[in-house]
Amino acid sequence: MAMTDLTIAKEAAIRPIQEIAQQAGIAEDALELYGKHKAKIDVNKLPNTTKDGKVVLVTAISPTPAGEGKSTVTVGLADALRRSGESVMVALREPSLGPVMGIKGGATGGGFAQVLPMEDINLHFTGDIHAITSANNALAALIDNHLHQGNALRIDPRRITWKRALDMNDRALRHVTIGLGGPAQGVPREDGFDITVASEIMAVLCLATSREDLKERLARMVIGYTYDREPVTVRDLEAQGALALLLKEAFKPNLVQTIEGTPAIVHGGPFANIAHGCNSLMATNTARSLADVVVTEAGFGADLGAEKFMHIKSRKGGFHPDAVVIVATVRALKMHGGVDKKELGAEDADAVRRGIVNLAKHVETIRQFGIEPVVALNRFMGDSAAELAHVMDWAEAEGVAIALTEVWGKGGAGGLELAELVKRQLDKGADFGYLYAEEDAVEEKLRTIVQKVYGGADVQLTDKAKKQLAELKKYGWDALPICMAKTQYSLSDQPKLLGRPEGFTVTIRELIPKLGAGFIVCLTGDIMTMPGLPKSPAALNMDVAEDGQALGLF
Amino acid sequence: MAMTDLTIAKEAAIRPIQEIAQQAGIAEDALELYGKHKAKIDVNKLPNTTKDGKVVLVTAISPTPAGEGKSTVTVGLADALRRSGESVMVALREPSLGPVMGIKGGATGGGFAQVLPMEDINLHFTGDIHAITSANNALAALIDNHLHQGNALRIDPRRITWKRALDMNDRALRHVTIGLGGPAQGVPREDGFDITVASEIMAVLCLATSREDLKERLARMVIGYTYDREPVTVRDLEAQGALALLLKEAFKPNLVQTIEGTPAIVHGGPFANIAHGCNSLMATNTARSLADVVVTEAGFGADLGAEKFMHIKSRKGGFHPDAVVIVATVRALKMHGGVDKKELGAEDADAVRRGIVNLAKHVETIRQFGIEPVVALNRFMGDSAAELAHVMDWAEAEGVAIALTEVWGKGGAGGLELAELVKRQLDKGADFGYLYAEEDAVEEKLRTIVQKVYGGADVQLTDKAKKQLAELKKYGWDALPICMAKTQYSLSDQPKLLGRPEGFTVTIRELIPKLGAGFIVCLTGDIMTMPGLPKSPAALNMDVAEDGQALGLF
Repeated sequence: MAMTDLTIAKEAAIRPIQEIAQQAGIAEDALELYGKHKAKIDVNKLPNTTKDGKVVLVTAISPTPAGEGKSTVTVGLADALRRSGESVMVALREPSLGPVMGIKGGATGGGFAQVLPMEDINLHFTGDIHAITSANNALAALIDNHLHQGNALRIDPRRITWKRALDMNDRALRHVTIGLGGPAQGVPREDGFDITVASEIMAVLCLATSREDLKERLARMVIGYTYDREPVTVRDLEAQGALALLLKEAFKPNLVQTIEGTPAIVHGGPFANIAHGCNSLMATNTARSLADVVVTEAGFGADLGAEKFMHIKSRKGGFHPDAVVIVATVRALKMHGGVDKKELGAEDADAVRRGIVNLAKHVETIRQFGIEPVVALNRFMGDSAAELAHVMDWAEAEGVAIALTEVWGKGGAGGLELAELVKRQLDKGADFGYLYAEEDAVEEKLRTIVQKVYGGADVQLTDKAKKQLAELKKYGWDALPICMAKTQYSLSDQPKLLGRPEGFTVTIRELIPKLGAGFIVCLTGDIMTMPGLPKSPAALNMDVAEDGQALGLF
Repeated sequence: MAMTDLTIAKEAAIRPIQEIAQQAGIAEDALELYGKHKAKIDVNKLPNTTKDGKVVLVTAISPTPAGEGKSTVTVGLADALRRSGESVMVALREPSLGPVMGIKGGATGGGFAQVLPMEDINLHFTGDIHAITSANNALAALIDNHLHQGNALRIDPRRITWKRALDMNDRALRHVTIGLGGPAQGVPREDGFDITVASEIMAVLCLATSREDLKERLARMVIGYTYDREPVTVRDLEAQGALALLLKEAFKPNLVQTIEGTPAIVHGGPFANIAHGCNSLMATNTARSLADVVVTEAGFGADLGAEKFMHIKSRKGGFHPDAVVIVATVRALKMHGGVDKKELGAEDADAVRRGIVNLAKHVETIRQFGIEPVVALNRFMGDSAAELAHVMDWAEAEGVAIALTEVWGKGGAGGLELAELVKRQLDKGADFGYLYAEEDAVEEKLRTIVQKVYGGADVQLTDKAKKQLAELKKYGWDALPICMAKTQYSLSDQPKLLGRPEGFTVTIRELIPKLGAGFIVCLTGDIMTMPGLPKSPAALNMDVAEDGQALGLF
């Protein structure tokens, strides 16, 4: 039987979660078990501590279908730091069922650098995302019920911006009409479903620092506009208490373990292309109060997850990363250099040379934030010595710290050199600064991101976006950070422009204020907030044995 | 502060679930904890036993907005049996979020006869219903993706019978159009959402006796028809493995406790008006293998839940109830006697006399199954001595065993007399027989239910239903039990006909084959498989405190 992530996970010597908690300094009283290997943490029962662990952010080059292994390196780095004597925790996002059922690949790392139990984390986990789906759709039902029961708030059914959500890849739900069938079946109107990880409630859960803050953020969310064009909020509907109640357990961070027994907090799961792409502040803050070093990741390339980690998450959290790791692979660099996925097997050092400009741009981006990044060159079987050497030579020439990692096959032992480089960087410290201020004009914030982070020439707004910007200003909502919704494949807004495109203009087609989350979502290109399933969904290979064991999951 | 179900629940001395398990004979190894007070049971790790506990089914008169307290009596009876020395477990359905957010009232009993922790059981619980929602909608997404990716099976988009589902009261989703927005957004078609508890997957989960049986039932489900009018099943889509995997944990029964520490299995939650209304066979079978007596309930009046318990659940399970309790209240009998809810405070023994015909019919129904029922007259504050006496006198005259219960206020101590009568009935035993055979013609099965159970004159099928019946026969699907979908308020299909209506004809407007569940759903009147929210949803009074305590839930 071939070794897969699932077979490796099943053969791992997983430890009772109470042991992991004890090792992390979490008293048994603060644990709420979910089975034998998962637990929620009641943060009110954690010891008071002034510990303020350092944060290592793991990001990546622009991803390709070849796979970079960012979660794998995040887990492997944490295990390597623990092997080298550090007090360390890892903080990851929780996977959405959409990609799990759609394409092969979860968010729990791989090989000997995984978080366990992978089959549970990838399927329902402790129910957080389902609770968010429930809260999202309870709000939607309350809105439509309000219309149906007389519409005292005079909500304009044509201007309801709150969408329904499912944790599913389901393109047929992107544009729907609801309330059909006559007066007893509600008020007909256009609507649509987002994937739950793009719901504002996911962002709110991930950015709230207390239950009070959570409720206040929920209350602030704008759900649409009245016939007089006045914004309608959750507070107007008096629904924030019910939503907060539905999120009662989901708000508590989840404790699991890496395959080597390092404590891992897996909590919150916004995508980084259509949302802010970072695990919860509760997760990071809890980990920082318990460990000296917290290794965490942000989704997709540094242009997406890392930019939002800096400008949204760590700004709200009042901290910044102390070190940043950029994951790159020879295979992905070759694709950025123009090689087709089917031809990745053939050695092509020249393609590596052509593609390395993508890595160079992300290094440049992180340096602009005042942090000297460390590159993790994540080795895959089939990478040739010449190809690897080319990347190492480039790094030396550019003065970039780089380490070869082999964590998939070797676990923490395959990431010791990376751990050393990261520790050196943590000792040196960062001279952190934001690229834009919240109070900058929206156009200026957008231009800063496009020019400094994406390396583009300029930004343009469609007529619709211009109108929306005028409204944002009218309501006084423009002094918020930007949450870009952009393809992950390219630094630009055009998925096929790989490598390091230049001179491009990014088109903003829509601006959506998310007052609960506290940012303005800017949709670019044809990015979708509800993905679709591929021609052959991964779901069709899945099964379960009579004893309850997952089969064909990965 | 007034005593509410929630305040009583919070003050109760809830015990660690491991202690409850030990008392029930469940080894720690077979427990998967969900927090400190809930657990899933891994039935593969239960001791082999030949124990075959007796089954007490608790049903009720036709419910009214006055509330009968069926779950409360179920729990109180179990606690009373335990107080009187019996080895007993209680088996209940798990609550849907729809009614919890919509109307005040859960499915966990009340007062001093509740299952705990009520706030968790009423909100998400162990995630079973969310897993069913996921499986239901994963199948829907796979169907629409199949259409979008070329439709190799030639599924007719106009004849897809599989609907989407949410665990929500949301009338605006009853009739929708999906797939709008152009070729990249799927194939436009009409669709609709049911509440999750009405999903066939809920019925499948509740009726399956092993994982293999579960998968086989999922595979058999019909999702629609081809352009050539051939049925398309889940097996044709090769999706049964993925659905079974999504139900991996949901299939395991949940262990909780009553307020007096009696072990309770709460698992599966189909409504009894629009679905088959019984908790899972896994729950009942597990309880029967552990205890001498299992007290369980079926939803709404004996015309709905109890009829389906006999003809669907216990037929599939190869057992039958050994005793049946019918819950009645003076308040409800008065409403059946024509009193308005607002005037229930005034003594009106004559209205009790007029309304008692409803109770008489349900007694008659249970006797037809060969079981002598016991009536539980569930006492409410405000019931007058004359009113109560009238019911007791009627029972004596009719030779019906009856006990006054005060379990809301006194717990098991308020149900001791009922327990004695039930034990007497268990000793006597039943002479059980079905009212119809599976192989009877569909029209005959329908007529039997309408005449013998509802006390009506006849049944008629709409033209649409007649066409559907012809199709059922053509495909050879007619030798299945009937699952009636009918208003709970009346013995007839007209909600306002209270008491004991006579001479009425029930109209079947639609027949829906559910081959996975193994029954034919027959829709009557204007019964809806997706409820709506009321004018003032209960959600608007809910909140959560900073320490995570639920507020305003009940």
